[in-house]
Amino acid sequence: MIPGMNPPAMKPPVMTPPYYAVIFTSQRTAEIDGYDDTAERMLELAAAQPGYLGVESARDAGGLGITVSYWATLEDIAAWRRHAEHTLARERGRADWYAHYELRIARVERAYSWDKPE
Amino acid sequence: MIPGMNPPAMKPPVMTPPYYAVIFTSQRTAEIDGYDDTAERMLELAAAQPGYLGVESARDAGGLGITVSYWATLEDIAAWRRHAEHTLARERGRADWYAHYELRIARVERAYSWDKPE
Repeated sequence: MIPGMNPPAMKPPVMTPPYYAVIFTSQRTAEIDGYDDTAERMLELAAAQPGYLGVESARDAGGLGITVSYWATLEDIAAWRRHAEHTLARERGRADWYAHYELRIARVERAYSWDKPE
Repeated sequence: MIPGMNPPAMKPPVMTPPYYAVIFTSQRTAEIDGYDDTAERMLELAAAQPGYLGVESARDAGGLGITVSYWATLEDIAAWRRHAEHTLARERGRADWYAHYELRIARVERAYSWDKPE
């Protein structure tokens, strides 16, 4: 327990650590053809994989995006990476849609959530 | 090493794992007064703290934002959390700016980056 990391206002998380996060930070190119459909399809497909726990994604007006997906184990992440349709989508991403990206695999050790009181 | 997690196209990361990520996912309210200035100030202040490694942030048009800050140790994260001005900003955030948030502390175990070839 880190001192001060769990104030009373915060609820227990929906997902109980430990679990894994894939933090994907990307800068888009100006190429839009096919991107939205593929991104939507990948979210749908990921959600159907073993060990998938959830995803959060935001992209700002300047084209910088962060997508964090959550998984039960490292093996689940590796299996999703090997998925044939996902592999093709990544290749298309490198060819057309991304100027730069960073990918990090992290073990979630603590999690808190907070909702504004009604 | 996870099979398939390190294709030749990816470069070594700038920051070498292990290090820590604070994944902060938030839904904003409609209240804008003071938010941008405080958010900017917090980024500036965080960058001056011991153990700070970097930050990535994106907020989409619907008000969902993801900010991931990176730190050398858990102790650095706890010290930044205790910082007086940061504590006040979080209180203002709960009172005015956020409808909901999730906060996760994760240990980055692997990291890759990719740049589009010139």
